[in-house]
Order: sequence, then C-alpha cells, then structure tokens
Amino acid sequence: MSTVLVKGGTVVNATGAVAADVLVDGEKIVAVLEPGSTLLGSDLAGSADTVIDATGKYVIPGGIDAHTHFSLPFGGTQAVDDFDTGTRAAAWGGTTSVIDFAVQRYGERVEDGLAKWHDMAGGNAHIDYGFHQIIGGVDEESLKAMEGLVDEGITSYKLFMAYPGVFYSDDAQILRAMQKAREFGLMTMMHAENGPAIDVLAAQLAESGKTSPYYHGIARAWQMEEEATHRAIMLADVTGAPLYVVHVSAKQAVAQLAAARDAGKNVFGETCPQYLYLSLEKQLGASSEEWGDFEGAKWVCSTPLRSEEEGHLDAMWQGLRTNDLQMVSTDHCPFCMKDQKELGKDDFRAIPNGIGSIEHRVDLLYQGVVDGRITLSRWVELIATTPARMFGLYGKKGVIQPGADADIVVYDPNGHTSIGVDKTHHMNMDHSAWEGFEIDGHVDVTMSRGAVLVQDGEYVGTKGRGQFLKRGLTQYLV
Amino acid sequence: MSTVLVKGGTVVNATGAVAADVLVDGEKIVAVLEPGSTLLGSDLAGSADTVIDATGKYVIPGGIDAHTHFSLPFGGTQAVDDFDTGTRAAAWGGTTSVIDFAVQRYGERVEDGLAKWHDMAGGNAHIDYGFHQIIGGVDEESLKAMEGLVDEGITSYKLFMAYPGVFYSDDAQILRAMQKAREFGLMTMMHAENGPAIDVLAAQLAESGKTSPYYHGIARAWQMEEEATHRAIMLADVTGAPLYVVHVSAKQAVAQLAAARDAGKNVFGETCPQYLYLSLEKQLGASSEEWGDFEGAKWVCSTPLRSEEEGHLDAMWQGLRTNDLQMVSTDHCPFCMKDQKELGKDDFRAIPNGIGSIEHRVDLLYQGVVDGRITLSRWVELIATTPARMFGLYGKKGVIQPGADADIVVYDPNGHTSIGVDKTHHMNMDHSAWEGFEIDGHVDVTMSRGAVLVQDGEYVGTKGRGQFLKRGLTQYLV
Amino acid sequence: MSTVLVKGGTVVNATGAVAADVLVDGEKIVAVLEPGSTLLGSDLAGSADTVIDATGKYVIPGGIDAHTHFSLPFGGTQAVDDFDTGTRAAAWGGTTSVIDFAVQRYGERVEDGLAKWHDMAGGNAHIDYGFHQIIGGVDEESLKAMEGLVDEGITSYKLFMAYPGVFYSDDAQILRAMQKAREFGLMTMMHAENGPAIDVLAAQLAESGKTSPYYHGIARAWQMEEEATHRAIMLADVTGAPLYVVHVSAKQAVAQLAAARDAGKNVFGETCPQYLYLSLEKQLGASSEEWGDFEGAKWVCSTPLRSEEEGHLDAMWQGLRTNDLQMVSTDHCPFCMKDQKELGKDDFRAIPNGIGSIEHRVDLLYQGVVDGRITLSRWVELIATTPARMFGLYGKKGVIQPGADADIVVYDPNGHTSIGVDKTHHMNMDHSAWEGFEIDGHVDVTMSRGAVLVQDGEYVGTKGRGQFLKRGLTQYLV
Amino acid sequence: MSTVLVKGGTVVNATGAVAADVLVDGEKIVAVLEPGSTLLGSDLAGSADTVIDATGKYVIPGGIDAHTHFSLPFGGTQAVDDFDTGTRAAAWGGTTSVIDFAVQRYGERVEDGLAKWHDMAGGNAHIDYGFHQIIGGVDEESLKAMEGLVDEGITSYKLFMAYPGVFYSDDAQILRAMQKAREFGLMTMMHAENGPAIDVLAAQLAESGKTSPYYHGIARAWQMEEEATHRAIMLADVTGAPLYVVHVSAKQAVAQLAAARDAGKNVFGETCPQYLYLSLEKQLGASSEEWGDFEGAKWVCSTPLRSEEEGHLDAMWQGLRTNDLQMVSTDHCPFCMKDQKELGKDDFRAIPNGIGSIEHRVDLLYQGVVDGRITLSRWVELIATTPARMFGLYGKKGVIQPGADADIVVYDPNGHTSIGVDKTHHMNMDHSAWEGFEIDGHVDVTMSRGAVLVQDGEYVGTKGRGQFLKRGLTQYLV
Repeated sequence: MSTVLVKGGTVVNATGAVAADVLVDGEKIVAVLEPGSTLLGSDLAGSADTVIDATGKYVIPGGIDAHTHFSLPFGGTQAVDDFDTGTRAAAWGGTTSVIDFAVQRYGERVEDGLAKWHDMAGGNAHIDYGFHQIIGGVDEESLKAMEGLVDEGITSYKLFMAYPGVFYSDDAQILRAMQKAREFGLMTMMHAENGPAIDVLAAQLAESGKTSPYYHGIARAWQMEEEATHRAIMLADVTGAPLYVVHVSAKQAVAQLAAARDAGKNVFGETCPQYLYLSLEKQLGASSEEWGDFEGAKWVCSTPLRSEEEGHLDAMWQGLRTNDLQMVSTDHCPFCMKDQKELGKDDFRAIPNGIGSIEHRVDLLYQGVVDGRITLSRWVELIATTPARMFGLYGKKGVIQPGADADIVVYDPNGHTSIGVDKTHHMNMDHSAWEGFEIDGHVDVTMSRGAVLVQDGEYVGTKGRGQFLKRGLTQYLV
Repeated sequence: MSTVLVKGGTVVNATGAVAADVLVDGEKIVAVLEPGSTLLGSDLAGSADTVIDATGKYVIPGGIDAHTHFSLPFGGTQAVDDFDTGTRAAAWGGTTSVIDFAVQRYGERVEDGLAKWHDMAGGNAHIDYGFHQIIGGVDEESLKAMEGLVDEGITSYKLFMAYPGVFYSDDAQILRAMQKAREFGLMTMMHAENGPAIDVLAAQLAESGKTSPYYHGIARAWQMEEEATHRAIMLADVTGAPLYVVHVSAKQAVAQLAAARDAGKNVFGETCPQYLYLSLEKQLGASSEEWGDFEGAKWVCSTPLRSEEEGHLDAMWQGLRTNDLQMVSTDHCPFCMKDQKELGKDDFRAIPNGIGSIEHRVDLLYQGVVDGRITLSRWVELIATTPARMFGLYGKKGVIQPGADADIVVYDPNGHTSIGVDKTHHMNMDHSAWEGFEIDGHVDVTMSRGAVLVQDGEYVGTKGRGQFLKRGLTQYLV
Repeated sequence: MSTVLVKGGTVVNATGAVAADVLVDGEKIVAVLEPGSTLLGSDLAGSADTVIDATGKYVIPGGIDAHTHFSLPFGGTQAVDDFDTGTRAAAWGGTTSVIDFAVQRYGERVEDGLAKWHDMAGGNAHIDYGFHQIIGGVDEESLKAMEGLVDEGITSYKLFMAYPGVFYSDDAQILRAMQKAREFGLMTMMHAENGPAIDVLAAQLAESGKTSPYYHGIARAWQMEEEATHRAIMLADVTGAPLYVVHVSAKQAVAQLAAARDAGKNVFGETCPQYLYLSLEKQLGASSEEWGDFEGAKWVCSTPLRSEEEGHLDAMWQGLRTNDLQMVSTDHCPFCMKDQKELGKDDFRAIPNGIGSIEHRVDLLYQGVVDGRITLSRWVELIATTPARMFGLYGKKGVIQPGADADIVVYDPNGHTSIGVDKTHHMNMDHSAWEGFEIDGHVDVTMSRGAVLVQDGEYVGTKGRGQFLKRGLTQYLV
Repeated sequence: MSTVLVKGGTVVNATGAVAADVLVDGEKIVAVLEPGSTLLGSDLAGSADTVIDATGKYVIPGGIDAHTHFSLPFGGTQAVDDFDTGTRAAAWGGTTSVIDFAVQRYGERVEDGLAKWHDMAGGNAHIDYGFHQIIGGVDEESLKAMEGLVDEGITSYKLFMAYPGVFYSDDAQILRAMQKAREFGLMTMMHAENGPAIDVLAAQLAESGKTSPYYHGIARAWQMEEEATHRAIMLADVTGAPLYVVHVSAKQAVAQLAAARDAGKNVFGETCPQYLYLSLEKQLGASSEEWGDFEGAKWVCSTPLRSEEEGHLDAMWQGLRTNDLQMVSTDHCPFCMKDQKELGKDDFRAIPNGIGSIEHRVDLLYQGVVDGRITLSRWVELIATTPARMFGLYGKKGVIQPGADADIVVYDPNGHTSIGVDKTHHMNMDHSAWEGFEIDGHVDVTMSRGAVLVQDGEYVGTKGRGQFLKRGLTQYLV
C-alpha cells in the first residue's frame, strides 16, 4: 500500500481549523499530525511515498453531494449525466461521494429499481456512491420492500407530495411509509410541494396563454411549498419518524422547519446552490436573443427559483447560518436545451425539471465564505460533514480524521475558478446554469480513497473505481 | 519532553466518535492515529514514555467550565472555593479549564479588579484558567478600560440586569457597553433578570412573612427572566453586538433565544446542571430535620431553580438538543450552610446566592447521554468544544486534535460515580447540592497540558501548574 | 298587525348592555326605547297589544345556530332530528334561526340536494332556517352549480378534508372550489381533518383490537386537525378566498387560526359546546353499567372530543375570548344509542358521528358567563351577532335594533335549567349528551318574528311557521 | 326639554348599519326607530321640536378622542391648544368627547395635578371631557393617591418608560403602580419606549452632527419601542393588571401585542392617524424652502413616524383590521413652528414633541373606509365605541342607543373635506400636520348631549357647555 502525506495545509473540520499534516496509508487516513511532526523520530515526509504540498491551502474532507439524479427518466426524456460523466464532473469540483436516487414507481418492484441503479453505477462511477430509494408507488409490496433496505445499505428513501400520476404519494401512503421508516430506522426524504394544487394552477396559467418558463415559478407558489412542508412535519410527528425535506427554496418553508426544530423535532432541511444564487426575476424570467423568453427554461426545476425581492434567497443563506437548514446538495438533474428543455417551448409544463450543479457546489458554497455569508467551518459542515452524518457515512466520510477514507480535497483560497461552458465545465450539458459565475477559490487536488483524481488541472481518475457505499443509519438525530 | 500514548480508546469530538490513539508530546497532542498504527514502521506504543490504556473508554477533550466565581464576595461573605480548592475539584471531575469572573464595581478600576484576580489565581490554580471581566459599574472610565481587555486576553465581559446597587447596569449603561463590545470584539455576557422589579416582589414577600428559601424562587418569577432576556436581545440588536445569556433557567427565556436565533441573530445561551436536574418544588421547597424549611437554602441561586411541573427542566434539555442553548457551565459559587447560607435564616434575601457544581458538570451531563437526553457527541460539544469556540480557546482547548493542549479526559462508561459529601466531594463546602446523585460513568484520568492530574482514584496534580489563558475573540459567530 | 312591548329588561347587544324597552310591530322590531319612555306623550305600554315584562332579565337577539344536520344520512343511518323536532327543540333553548347543510355528493346534482332540503324544511320548521351547501363531489358540474348559489340565498358551502369516499375533496378540488367561491363571494366552510391519514390510523387501531369509542379520539389525532387547518388556510391564501373552519377542537388548530388572523387573513373558526365542556378522558373514555366502555359512543363526533389534561378545552374558551374563534355552533347531528350508535359496538369506525346540542347551546354558553369565562356581551356576540354577520343575516337577525326581525329571547339570570332526558329535553334522542348539566339561567321567552314560541314553560309555536332565509354575503370580512 | 328627530339616515354602530331614525329628548337619545315609524300612531316627525334630515348620510356616535394633551408643558414651552380651542376644533371634526391627561411629576401631588386640570377644563370645554392621570413620579404618596382616583372618575393613568428625569418610571415603579392599578381597577396606559437607551442614541447622533428632525426618528429605533412594549406586557403579566399601550407605531410592537393577546392577556394598543399616513421618509425627512431640512420638525412626535418602506404604516392598518390594535386616538399635542418647534433648530432633541390632529381623526379614519382599509362599522368602533368601552364611558357614549347621551354626528359620504391651514383648520397652530390631505367625506352635523355644535358649516357650540365625565371602570376586559 502506498502512503501519501498532505503537508503544510490547514485542516478544516466542522468545528474549526488547525495547521496539520495528514498521513494517508492506502485508502485511509491513518494520522493527523502536528505540522512537520517527526513523531518520535520518524521522518514522515521523507518516508511517505508521495507528498502533496498544501501550504497556504485548506485541506478538507471531500464533498458529499447527497442529492443527484443520474440518468433520471423525466417527462419522456432522461437526465444527461450518467454515473460516468456525472461523478467525473463531481471530482473536478471537489466532490468525492454522491448519493443518487434509485427509482421505484407504481407497479414496479423496489428491488428492480435498486438493481437497475446498481447496474448503472457499477463500473462507471469515478467516486464512491450510495443510493436513496425513491418510493414512487407506496403499496403493500413496496412497504414490505422497505423493510429490507437497511440491510442493503439504503438507509433513506424519498417520497413526493408533487407529481400526481408519476411519483406522488397521498397522505395515507406517506403516513404508512413513515411508520415503516420509523420502525426500521430509515430517514424519510420529502419533496414537499402540494402537487395536486400546483397542477391546477399550472393548467390555468397555461390555458390562459401564460406558457413561458417564468410561469413555472408562478404556478409553484411558495404557499404550496410551505403547506406541504408543514404537512410533512405533522405526518412525521404522528409517526415519530425523522424527516428530511429536500430542495427547500421558500423562506416560509424554512420558517416551518425552524418552528418544528425549536419544538425539538427531528426535522431537517436541505437547500441547493440555485436557491442561494438564482432567482425568479433574473433567471426564470430571463430573455436572450437565442431563446427569447424561453431562456428561463435553463433554470426550470422544482421547487422553483424564488423571488429575490421577496427575500427568499437571503432567507436560504440565513437558514444555513441558523442551522434551520443543515446542508446543501445539488439536486443535480441536467437536461440540455436542445431536444430536452425544448420540449416545453409551448408550455412550461413540458420542460424537463432540473439544473446541473454537481461540479460547482463546493465552489459556490466557498464563495459564501468569501462573501461573509458563512464561516469556513460551516462550509465544510454544509458540504461534507453534515451530509455524512445525516446519511450514515460519518467516520468513513465527511471528516479529516484517522480511520476515515482518504477523500481529501486541497482547496486554494488564493486560486480562482471561472464557470462557463467554454471554461471549466465537465458536465454533459449544452449550457451551464452557472455561466459567468466567478469563484474566489479553486479545487487544486481531489483524492478519493487515497487515489488522486484531480491535480494540477489534470484529471487522473479512473472510471469504475468508485465503490458502492453501504450506509448506516443517520448519525444526526438528537 | 515526555511522550504519552492514550491507546485503544474511542476519541469523541463534537461531530462524532472514532477509534483512535492519541499521541502526546510534552504539553501538546501531536497526533491522532489509527488504533495500533505503526505509522510507517515506528512502534509508537513501544516508544512512548507512558502508555495510558483507554480500551473500552471515551477519550475526550477536558471539560471547560466557562462560568465560575472563585472567592467571589457576595452579600457580606465570600464564595468558599478559591483557585486552589476549586480547580482541584474541577480536575477531579474532568474539567481542565475554567473561566472565572474578575470583578469591577462602581468606583473601582477595571484594571485593579483584573490584577486582583491574577493575584488570586497565579500560583494557586491546578488547571488553566481565563477571566471574563465583570463590569459592575459602567462609566466613562470602565468603558475606556474595556478597550484594553482584548489585549489582555479577556475577550468577554459580563453585565447584570439584576442586583441594583451592586452589579446592576441600567439600559443606557448596557447600550453603551455593548457598543464598546461591538467595536472591540468582546462578547457580552448577561445576567438577564429584571432586578428592580424582582426586588420589589422579594421585599413584598419578605414583608408579608414569606421568608423561607422557597420564596426566593417565587420572587424571581420567570416573567422577569424572560423579560430581561428579550430586552438584552433588543439592546444587542440595536448595537450589532453578539450576546451570551448566562444561566438560563426559564423555558420562556429559551423561547426568546430561539426566536432571536431563528432571525439570524448572534444570540447564545448557557444553562447549568442545576436547571437540568433540580427544581423549585423539590429542592427550593425542601424541608429537613436539621434545617426545617430552610433546607432549600442550599439551592438558592439566581436565576432560581424553576418549577418542574411547568416544564422548565424539560425545556432546558430540549434547548440543549435544539442548540437554542449552546453550552453548560456551572455558575460555581459555593457557600456553606454554616455561617454563610445561614445569614438568610430569617429572610431569603440575605442568603448568599450560589451552588457548587464544578466537580460534577462533566458527570451530570454524561448522565444525560445515558438517559437518552443528548448524544455522546453533543455531550462533548456542550462541555468542551462549544465553550472553547464561544470564548476564543478552540484549537488550543476543546478538541482532540494535533496542536491542541493535551487536556484529555479518559471517561469510563462502565464506571460509576456516587456523589455526596462523604463519598466523592472535593469542593470546599459543608454540603453538596448534588447529594445522592448517581452517575453511570466515571472520570478515570484527567490530564492537563500533558500532565496527569487524576488517575486510579488518586490526585497527582500540582497547585500552581495552571496557566493563565490569554483568550482570542469568539470563534462561534455566524 | 299586533304590537308587543318587551318592557323593563336589559337589552344586551354585542358591544354592551342597556336598560331599554323593545317595541315590536308585527314581525319586526320597530323601536328600542328608553325604559318607560312615553315618546312625545304616547303611552306605549298602554297602547301595545301585548306587554312582556322582562324586569330583571336579559333581552337578547334570538340565538342563531349556524351548523346543524337535520335528517343527515350518515353511515347507513340518519340523524334523528328533522326540521320539525329539531327546530322545536331549538326554540325551547332560545335559538330562533338555524342554518342547516344541504347535501351534494359525487354523481349528485347540487340543485337536487338543495331542492331536497327545501322539501324537508318547508312546512316543518318552527323557526327560520337557511342552508349552507355541502359540496361532497367537486367536479365541473358542481363547480358550475356553485355559481348560482348566491342567487338562491345560499352564500356559503362546505368542503370536507375528511371522509374519503363520502364527502372528501382533495387539494385540487378544494383549490378549484375556493377559486369559485372567491369569484362569487361564497364563504368556504371547511371540515379540517386529514381524513386519509386518520383512516389509516383508525384502521390500525381497530385491527389491533382497539375498537372502543375511546380510540375514535386517539385515531383522530390533533396533529391531523392542526395539519388540515393549516392546509386549508394556505389553499385559501393562494386563492384569496375567506375561510371558515368548522368545529375546531384542537388548541393547535386555534394557534393556526390565530397566526393566520394576526397576518391579516380572513380566516375564521367556530367551536361547539362539546369542545368547551366534554373531554376525551371523561366522556369518550366513559364506562357505564348499561353500555360498558361503549358508553363513550354517545360522544363520538368528528372532530373528536380532546384531552382536557392537554389543555384543549381551556384553549377553546381562550380562543373565544381572544376572538381567534368567532362563534359557537352545535354541529347538531343526533343519533340514538339504540339501533344507531350501536352499529359501532364492535368497531368505533361504524359509530355514526354526532352529538345533539341544539337545545342547549344558548344555556351552555351563558354558563360561561356565570363561570367568568366570557362577558355578557361576548355571549350574545358568540351565539347570535357574529353568526348573523358571518353568514349574511345581520340587520335582519342577530341584533336588537329597529328593522330587525323580532327574534327575541328573554333570558332570566336568576332562573335555572337542569338538563337531562327526564327533565328538559325536547330533542329526538334516547339520551342526552348533556345529562346532568346544570345551568344558572333560563330561557323564559322565545319569540320568532314577533310570535311567541315559548313562554311560561309552555310551547306555543307552530310547525311550519319558519321561513327560508335567503342570506346575503358575509358581513364579517375585514 | 326640547326634542330632535334625526331622520332618514343610516345609523352605524360597531357591528353593522341600519336605516333608522333617532329620537333625542333633551340631552339623551330616547329611541331608535324604524325609519318613518309612526309608533302606534304618533307622528314623530311632526311632533319633534327639531328635525335633522340625514337622508343619504351616516348617523354615528360622536367621536371619542382618548388621548389629548391640552396646554401640556413640554420642553420649556406649552401645547398651544387649550380646552377651549382644542375642544372646539374637536367638535368641528366630529369628536364629542376627549380624555385629556392630568399631570403629576416628581415632588408634585396627584391631587394638585388633577385639580389644575379641572381648573383648566371647567368653563372652557365645548364638549364633554374626562381625565387620565399621568403619574410622572411614582412614590409612596402618588401610589396612595392612585387609590382615590376611581372615586374621582379617573379610572386610568399613564406611565412613561421614556423621558428620564421628566416623566420616566423605572421598572420597580411600574411594577408597584401596576399592582395598585390591579387592586383598584385602574387601566394602566403606557408610553412604551426605552427612554434611557434612546437618550444615549440621540445624544450620540446629535454629538456627531446629525441634528435635523430626521434623526429624531433614527434615534427612537423601533427596537426600543418593541422592547418596551414587551417589557410592559411582562410587568403587567406578573401583576395581573390589564395594559393599554399608547401611540403604537412599530410593526414589531404590534406583533408583541398580538402575541400577548393570542395568549389571552388583557393587553391593548392604540395607534394614531400620523402612524397610519405619515412616514419617516416623507415627513420627518422633509425639506422645504422655508424651513430647509428642519421642515420635518412639524412631525416630530414620540413614538416617532416610522419607515413606510419597512412596512410600519401598512402594519398599523393591518393591526386595526385584526384588532391587535383596538382604537385610534390623536395624541393631540400641538406646537407651532415659530417659537416652539424652532427651539430645536440646532438639535432635534430640543424640538417639542407633538402633532395636532384632534380635528381630523374622524375624517382621516373615514378615508380608510373609502380606501378599503377598514369597514364602515370598524370605523365607528375605532373612533367611538371601543374608546367608550375601553375607558368606562360605554352606554353613555360611543353608541347610538336609547339612554345614551345624544352625542351624534351626521357624516356625509358624498361630502368632501380639504385639510389645510387656509381651508378647514380650527386648531391653534401656525401650520397643519395634514396640509393637503383630501377626505372623501364630511362632518355635516355635530351634536353634544342634544345640542347642535356644528351645522351647515357654522359653529354654533358654546364654550363651557362641556361637562366632566366621571368615568367607570373599563368595559373592555375579557
């Protein structure tokens, strides 16, 4: 086994930073050491097979993106990043683990969905990956199948209060699934939007000729996110199950989470980079020469981008500071404009929902540090430590500490990253949702279980080296 | 310099636990290592001067008690633990740092108060110590003196909304002090009780013959704590200064803190073991053969013990879980029944206020882990990591990590501790506020900067070895 | 036309009381006069055809019970009071107007339901009556039919978030109905309980052998009322429609209403006498020699009786004081134990839901005045004035004022009423939900449009004299 | 005694409107009658001495302004309206009762202050008047004097949390006064601003050269109103005394009142026309050719005008709708620019605090009806009915009902009122705070106890006809 010494950097963990060297032996971190320590006489730097100089840089646990949708079928098409292109882009951006969503729908077997995802990921992923299980059809059989998930290392599953006829569960189904989750220790993830009501509003808008992407944001009113968030909290409350609300974007939804948390409930919320930086006014309402008012289609996702004027974006940053939102995932679900987003040219309802961000999450959140939105430690907590704790990976992932996998990122606070299709862009899309964003920092090195994937601006990782992460139960409950 | 290897234990930090060895060189931790690691061939266990076997035990950062009052003059008498007896008892109980309060009052110079505290502590403390500065008389001179505190390593100061005529500051004084604090980076600590109103209520009770200790709790109504907490929050809000409320005991005060925190304010709260376990009904209202209804005097402190029936105790535990309360200190301020508490035999207002707990905080909070109130990691966060971050000691204290002082406690979850004057009791009091409490755990070893103070039930520490902690600015702001 | 002078009493309206005489000419109040006024020389007392001496008594507008279910088909049986027996009992108890619910269900035409109710009431009612329209099947046809309701004098309609398969509307249906209501000025009344979730819980309890009436209350958890209340508020918010939540029983539901009202929303809540006086512990959990633990079936209604210990009953009284609840109706829906409630002997789910209170509402609320729960004026406001304003009857009903219908009750605060099947009980049930209640007051005289129905303990009213009330739009919006 | 028939109008009371005639006999209303009623044959219109035709107009109870400061000494000068000019202007504007503040300060006797006010009012007032008692110096003597106030018909008193050294009471004083109030049934009125803190902020602004009137608004930050409001609520809570907060202007203060009211507390709030229409930005920050940036001095009052952008003005209207604010008074306290406001030319702290509005309150609130802010009934409730109930005048004042004083205003919704010094302006000031305001309505007739004061644009009232109102205890508690 080969050894690596990451030397001279500042190790940043969730509670603070310290000048320390990190010694890697094979796939694991075996020691965190006082800088330049000779440790009872041994010359570590001299003895290590490889030395990575991190002087003046941050040494952080590799990012964990707990919400991705590789190759997701949606609206008659399919997300364009697969486990190969998607995890490679992730590595470029300092993310060393993903948790993707295996899909089950009405009439399908959970086991089949899961097997399909294992097939898609195995031999293709560049970094380690785990799965959440989407239960899109709650019935006796899928409820029974939930009982076996923990043994498979799938300790979380997702329900949808939106998308009737596709993934939607009604309240009776949600209640039964949560009871099962409570019994077996699964974390319930919830897409919290009142789909039936939203679909009425969307149809009315479309029928009245309001068909551009902007109306996607109007139809999916914040009231319907707030409502569903509250409902999910109460259904969880009667069952005693913990709850994790995905892609929170409305400030009123954060307020619901905050109130539940103040009351001592195990209720959690994730937001995504798009809800921190992009808005209804600027992006969904965008117009361009090429696309006219259909330009906004690039940013059609659900929950939708919210109004900056109404304060939703600031509220997301505040929620991250107050820990009413615990972590940031991407909800990475990329579609091209050509042939895909275009499907909704005449009706926003036909635009595939999704934005691609997997490559930029670590950077975009670091920019929050530069901008004074969050602290350095909170950055690491949001992108790595809490995702690990939330989804049963902590110890192995999410921390620079002996015994942990050597998933290490060397991040240069003096570097710079320009985002754009013609610049840094390794995702499989014909555009970038983040075109033109500038980041005052740079991912210098990405290591996954001791192997360097990215260094000196070169990609040296290997397709198929990524392993399935059999996850434990959540480590974040209080 | 001598080396110590703490071997085979489970290192517990604020975000999780890991099996790891800890190597100490001189006064510092120099490495955290995979258990049994040979680190490139070196036989660490063989090479270390001393090996401490922590198999089956927790290895945690030494406790930090950020609220003690050694030798505090109060009501014509003086707290009976000094820096010698107090810090020795602390070490017995797994606490390796204290932050005591230097005192300034009207007409006194801040510099003199601080010098006096340096005199009292120097050469007497067994463990490291820092100071907060009480500003009991806010005027031009003391405001000016606040400007120099940070350079002295005193990065926090305390005001009182109670005790008119003694430590009390009115709102104009508070505002001016907070403005100064904001300018110089000091943390404002607040005794939040409406003293002027409470004194009216107390006088009325006493005058109507309600003179027993129980009425101390009645006079200091929760409304008056809630009110002052809110007022302190709003005064902080107009100045932009962060705020730390000491010894929170009322559930409604926690609600005020929670609301402020939800709104993104840098507002923090500390509670104490007595507010988690002891109550108005059971302790303040106690009666004994020896003392009659004056028995309750043992537990006269301010803020007072609250009603368990009304849910205050549960609310404190919940606040610790929800992080609406960030840490637990003792407010250690011990008085004997004889000659001291007795002063208030005929009038509860004359009872010196204070409870001694410095020896038991780590144990009492660990019992919360056993009882399912908090997690193991949260325990460490509450007693060590957050105190360090809150008061500018993190990195040096509060974490098991290379570069940190080797303030290490080996805690045995299979051990047992019986609290009582005739059992374990090293505080300088003629009674224990915690008589009869049983703890399902035990402090086996306490190390301070590499030196063992307690081991095998023996005290082997040294008076005067403790050093003054020149603290940095708070590391907990968001 | 004949004239009546109600003389010497204290006229109580919603904002206060005044000593005044009331002159009735035919069906209407024509003047409210200074007591004993001769009015420019005329000797009114001498001239009036009839003089009713109200000395020492309250003269109040006749009660309006805005929530009754005469002859409602439910669970294979039918409520046992019809428009004859029900309105006669109402008159005995000082209620002079009812608003009953016409029923439409899936596949039925709204017009047919309404016509049926007109048939049932016409020629049978002793007092005036209006209708709300239940829309149990929201579809294109019923939505269209809603447009005509205002012209029919039906200015309010009701939806159910409970009873899937019977009256239940999903959120898409609710949204569409509320949009229609907003457009045409209809008040939306909501049965706010999450029926789908409750039915799961109920089935699980029943299947585990928990079949007694007590479990009716357990299955219908407060969380599911709170949740539905919040959801209804948010659906109303996106449509701009006002909302009236019927039979509120959970304190957390009141909190939801209060929060919405604080935010300026036109959201209203009604509670019923049973939620003010009867409890889960005492009534639903009751046992008797005759009925064993099935005794509780007498009080099976939905929303269910709530726990007194948890403070729900006190919260209802408080809500009435704070005006977070605006009025008190009965939800009168009487079933006999024999042959009806008995249907659920082996399974609480089969017990017909309903309690009979129409005769006692005015008395039971007056007892709240005696007990210091509400003021005298608030009593009148809760039972008459606000119901009139809420449902478009004010001016004609709900106030003692010239131009109003002479629906007048003379209430004796020195009288007494003992409730019980063998005492005063004119409802068509084989038991009383209020057996043994004692009221420190008495309905002495009930007049409806100038005609005396009850006087000197005799019933002198006439079946069929009651007229249909073509109601206007709500007069309570702000 | 002469009789008057007010005929053909729409009588508006707090719960609704009705077409009715009002018969006045001497000083009282003796009957409210169906329009054109002949009442058993008598020809009322023919018999009445006088007939006032109110066809097409509203007949409302005369306005009650419960917060005026005639001839108040303040900042070395004195308010320029006395009981003569002030009550005459009031009558012009449809106000028929005022409650002015008698003043006691440190070292003064309550009895003397009260006697002085009786002297000032007696023989001068055109309309009826009552007094609240300012207790500006709470001590043993003034507390004792409070015991006699109810017998004097002074059932409310006011404390100040602002103006240290002038009217200020500290929390101990407030508590003691509230206890006394609770015991004797007095309503506590509170000027809720944290004066000591505000004075620090104001001094700092002035010392840094920010001396213009605008900084009056900056110094008196909303936080300091919110804080004091909360503090007053909690002090009231420990004593059990009801609380009435005067001149609420901050939305956060309304939120504090709302929360207290939701919790069932007897807490009330008044706002004033200036907080509904005038703002920090537009008025306090105003500049003119004549006055430069000192123009804003016209609107210097405390609490100050608030930011419209931040939503305070909308929040006041909303509070009136939600009944979190119960009534509108003027805080009429007029100062001229010349010689008075000018005193603060170089320092906003020296500007006498006050705005004159007594003449316009009824109109300005009616404009809220026109603008859709409040309903017609709510208008009457806010300006007359609730003031009467709140301060123990109901029955005699505040309602059109037999037995009430014939304080009647005929208000023309088709009339128009232009406000301005050169138009309608009868207050004794050299400017109008309301210059240029246009009202879509007009006070046609003002009657006080049966005598017409204003009619056909003529003033026909009499100085000295106004009588002292010996008020009863509040009638508004729940």
